[in-house]
Order: sequence, then structure tokens, then C-alpha cells
Amino acid sequence: MFSTDELCSLRWDPIGKVVEVIDQTLLPHTLRWCCLDSPAAFCRAISTMQVRGAPLIGITAAFGLATALTEDASDENLERASAALLATRPTAANLRWALEQITCEVQPLEPSRRASVALRKALALREEDVVNCERIGINGLQLLSALNKDTLNIMTHCNAGWLATVQWGTALAPIYKAHAHGMSVHVWVSETRPRNQGTNLTAWELHRAGVPCTIVTDNSCGQLIRQRKVDCVIVGSDRTAANGDVCNKVGTYLKALAARASNIPFYVALPESTIDWTCVSGEQIPIEHRDEAEVLSIGGLNSSGGYGELKLAAAHSKALNPAFDVTPADLVAALITEHGNFDACEKGLQRLRSLTSDQKPM
Amino acid sequence: MFSTDELCSLRWDPIGKVVEVIDQTLLPHTLRWCCLDSPAAFCRAISTMQVRGAPLIGITAAFGLATALTEDASDENLERASAALLATRPTAANLRWALEQITCEVQPLEPSRRASVALRKALALREEDVVNCERIGINGLQLLSALNKDTLNIMTHCNAGWLATVQWGTALAPIYKAHAHGMSVHVWVSETRPRNQGTNLTAWELHRAGVPCTIVTDNSCGQLIRQRKVDCVIVGSDRTAANGDVCNKVGTYLKALAARASNIPFYVALPESTIDWTCVSGEQIPIEHRDEAEVLSIGGLNSSGGYGELKLAAAHSKALNPAFDVTPADLVAALITEHGNFDACEKGLQRLRSLTSDQKPM
Repeated sequence: MFSTDELCSLRWDPIGKVVEVIDQTLLPHTLRWCCLDSPAAFCRAISTMQVRGAPLIGITAAFGLATALTEDASDENLERASAALLATRPTAANLRWALEQITCEVQPLEPSRRASVALRKALALREEDVVNCERIGINGLQLLSALNKDTLNIMTHCNAGWLATVQWGTALAPIYKAHAHGMSVHVWVSETRPRNQGTNLTAWELHRAGVPCTIVTDNSCGQLIRQRKVDCVIVGSDRTAANGDVCNKVGTYLKALAARASNIPFYVALPESTIDWTCVSGEQIPIEHRDEAEVLSIGGLNSSGGYGELKLAAAHSKALNPAFDVTPADLVAALITEHGNFDACEKGLQRLRSLTSDQKPM
Repeated sequence: MFSTDELCSLRWDPIGKVVEVIDQTLLPHTLRWCCLDSPAAFCRAISTMQVRGAPLIGITAAFGLATALTEDASDENLERASAALLATRPTAANLRWALEQITCEVQPLEPSRRASVALRKALALREEDVVNCERIGINGLQLLSALNKDTLNIMTHCNAGWLATVQWGTALAPIYKAHAHGMSVHVWVSETRPRNQGTNLTAWELHRAGVPCTIVTDNSCGQLIRQRKVDCVIVGSDRTAANGDVCNKVGTYLKALAARASNIPFYVALPESTIDWTCVSGEQIPIEHRDEAEVLSIGGLNSSGGYGELKLAAAHSKALNPAFDVTPADLVAALITEHGNFDACEKGLQRLRSLTSDQKPM
């Protein structure tokens, strides 16, 4: 189903030598590709969330650094551009990971060779992301098949689909694989306030891929789980600690609690690049706090078909807007990765690490 | 602090002989009183949620029935008007309770006497609601004081304040009492999608009463509790089963789970009229499902200062919109009522019942 470029969030135009991304702030009302042709455009695209989702942030940053090196490949600019990209979002682990991948490759080189090598590496990371996400889909499908339901009702939160990666997605990849295998699947999409990535992105991309789904408020998710209308929950991860604690879009933790209370599995799907081995536990992960305006006002499509904004709260009201929360590892049934499915604990992640360090010298 | 009529949601004009209520659909942007002068106006006010909150729905319905009897006090109209009012909202227990209070009083009477007796009873129910809510405040204050904090951080959900009753509120009454006693109090207001009663009503009424508060998304509440930024949660109840299960605004259950996971008390404040003795458990409480449009679009203040609506979801999107959920009794630390604080279990509620049946013959 992902053989074409139709279900894809970031493309490279080899003729114009520019990156094009879907401007996700306009979804679900307008599908517009926008061209990222300067380091500033890449930073802006990440910080304003035209692109978002930990894996896609990483890939975008990699292309951003390659673009910066095209303009000026000096050590100073390598450092400056990397720092600027790193500062766009504080939580996603893949951002630092992707920048390090490029930097390690180009730093030892003559400046004159850096731009082309960086671009080649960015393109390779993009391809790797697609392959890894498809593997996550295949590995997750094993768990979904084992649930053995006539129609499988899966709940997800925020967007961890192909819009959050390059293709397939993380949390949604097993769902796309199940759908492609002819399983009857229905997805409960929690709207994911305050930015409504569930409504804006997940419902939109599932519809585009032909997967049935229903939007619900974040508040409804507990009751739906308690009423056994949900067979499992799958979410993505923005950063995973070495003990298996998962930092993901705020509201994830509440779904994990509800899943535990009703004894249904709560899965987290993530590429290895999301794991921050330097974080011993979730307590150490910095939580991004975004502008209170995201809570106090809202955007959408007005009656003339244009984009409008409304104030929700009284002028005197104040809000706090943490963008992520931490789900403790003991609530996670399994971590679904490109290398297989692992227990969410230090031991499980060490097993993943030993597998991948064995592979690396090959 | 509630000695004046300023913090009051429903008033009776003895000269014009009409009920006036705050049109809560216009808050927090516009404070407009509207006049309910026909049975249809009362039904509309409840079904369109100009008035909402279980206790206020009950009081409004009582005045609605009295108004209907002014027009036609026959047995047929008593039955017809009562049925029409009962059909406006399916979940709140106080609606049926209030209608029964009026019906029991007037049914044995000559039709000619029914209207005036019904009105007197409605006024008495209104006064009783104010007294009961103040008692809930006093009883809840004991629990808050026992938490013994320099600044008490309380989380609430939806609106169970003076806008949901006549004065004081249920969940907010102990907070108003604490504030009046000079305790330093701060309230975390969860916005309460899809209708945002937290943002629209609770933040507005707390501000009006001078109580500091911060709005947060419903999604943030789990993390705030886990980070120990919340000392206790207090919510109201739309219907309470005889075993202590609590049906309240959707999203309540998730807060109860989070409170339990972090070992902080989860209190439910309710007048006895909210208890449905015929419901053995929460499973039997009918859950109102409202129009999916409440999830797929949203209203607020546009840039010209008028009321606007925006579409949030794509045209092809579907939503499910349950308005309430059930919190099992074992997650509730105490039921705060006008008769005292009780364990949330069959035994606790039987103790309440025996107390009040002792009182009734007096």
C-alpha cells in the first residue's frame, strides 16, 4: 500500500535539489506541499510544527543540516546550524540523533566534500526510516494477530503515522499492515488536545489509506476502554528512556492507566533512534512547555472555507501547556521496534541494544 | 461570600413572575440573563444546555413544571409537561427527582391550587439547594483542611460550581469555603472537551469569586497528578449509584485512575438528590450520547468579538460523543454530601440513607 509516493510526508526533488514537506499545520483542511530551501526554513518548519513526529523531525533536521552545509561547510557553520536545528524542539530524541549521524559523517571531511556527503546521508536516513517503520509494522502485526479478534478495535493517541515519519508510521504501521493483510480493523482516534493531531492528522491519514476510524475526545478514552470497546492501545514515542519509560504526547499516560485498569495491552511503537540511552529513567526527559495560546484559543475552518481562529477562554484566563508526558515502563505491554518486540524494562532494552551492536560491525 | 445574588445562576422575579437564568452557552465571553417564561423555554434551556449541572437542571425543571401548571393544571398536562422536561437530558438524576418532588406535592390537589403550590415548592427546592451546597462546602472543607498544605492545589473537572447549582456549587463549594477561610488555594481547571465547561464556566466563575486557577488540557491532568502538583481532585456527580459508583462528565474516570496511581484523594461532592437508589451499580446508568458536531467543530469568540464556529475535522470524519462516564466506587476516597462525608460503597450510602430517613419525620 505504500509502494507509491502518495502516502509519504517528505520528498526530495533531485532536480530542484530541495526538500518538500506537507505543511501539517494546514491539515486536515488543505493538503499543501511546501518547499524547504534554506536552513531557516527547516528550523521554522520544525518549530512551528509544519513537520512534527519524532522520526520526521529527525529526518527533516538531517536535510536541514545538509542544506546549511551547501551554503557554508565550515566547522563554525556545522556547529551553528546543528545548534539552531537542535533548539527547535526539546523533547524528541531523534532530532539530536539525526544531527549526530550527519555530524559524525562529515566532521572528519574537508569542507568541500561535506555538503554532498551530508545530503547522501540524509537520503540514506530517509530510506532507513521507511524500512524501519515497515519492520515495526510487521513486528506489531504479530501482536495484533495474536489478539485474535473478528474486528480489532485499536486506540491510538496523537499522530504516529506516516505523517510523523516518512512512510508507514510507528504506532500506525502495524495497523496499516493488519489492514493490508485483510484483517478487519477499526481505530479509535483520540483528538489530542490542544493541537488536535488525532483529529487533524491521524483521522485524515487513516481515511486516505482506507482504514475505518472514529474520532473521540481524549476524555472519552477511559470509558471506551472500560466498556471493552478497545482491544489494545498503540502509541508512538518521542523519547524512550533506558529503563523503558516512554515520553510521548501529553495524555498518553492516562490511556496507559486505563488500559492497565481494564487489562488490555498498551503497546508503544518506536524506532531505535527514539531511545535515549543517556536517560536512565523518564524523570530525566525534558518536557516541552508550549504557549498557553494553544489551549486558550483554537484554529479551524470557518464558514467561508478559510482558516479562522477563535478565543476559547476569557481574556483573564491563564493556562499551562505541557506538550508531553511520561508513561512508566511498567504500564507498557511491549515496545514494538524495527528489531523486534521487547519488554519495556532495562533488561528488554539491553537485549535490543546487544542485538543491534552485534549487527553494526557487519 | 455568597450573601449577595451576584454569584447565583437562577433567580426568581416575584413581580414579573418569571425565572431568569444565565445563558451558560454564551460564557465566558458574554454574561446574559435570559427569561424563561413558557414550558417550551424551560425545555429548550435544559436541552440546549443554557442551564446545565445536575442540581441546576433539577431546580430549573421544577420551575418549568410550575410554569406549565400555570397554563394548564390538569392531570394530563401535569403528566405531559413532566414527561417533556424529563426527556430533555437522560443522565442527571436530579431532573427526575425534582419533577417527582413537585408531582407528589400537587397531584393530590385540586387543579386550581396546583400552580401556586408547585411554585412554592420550586422556590423551596431552590432555597434547599443553596443550603445543601453550603453544607457540602463546610463538610468538604474538613477534608481539605486535613490535607494540611501551605497552598492547596486542587484539580477539578467540568463545572460543579455555583453555575451548576444555584449558589456555592458542589465540587467547588469546599474550595470557596477554603478561600473564604483564608486558605491559600489554587485550582487546576481541566478544560473538559468537548464543551469546555472547565474553560468556559469553572475558570470564569472561580475568577469572579477571586480564586486563583489555571486551565489545562484534559490530557495534562495525569502528568500534573503524577508530578505531585495536585493535592486532591474534587468533582461533582450527575448520578450516583447505590453502590457508590459515580456517573459524571466524561473524563472524570481518567482523573480518578491518575489520583489512585499517585495515591492522592479523589473526592466526589454531591447533594443526596443526585443518588439514584434504584441503580444498584454504575453499569445501569444511561449514558447520554450527544451530537458528533460537538467534537468535530467548536465555537468561540472571533476577532470581531462575535461568536464564531470553526470546523475542526475533515468533512469525511465521524465522531462518537458520550457525555458522561462512570467512575467505580473503589476509586473514590469519599462522597462529600450535605449530610456529611461518606465512604463510597453500599454501606456508606446506606448510612447516609438511614441518617436522612431518621431526619425526615422530624
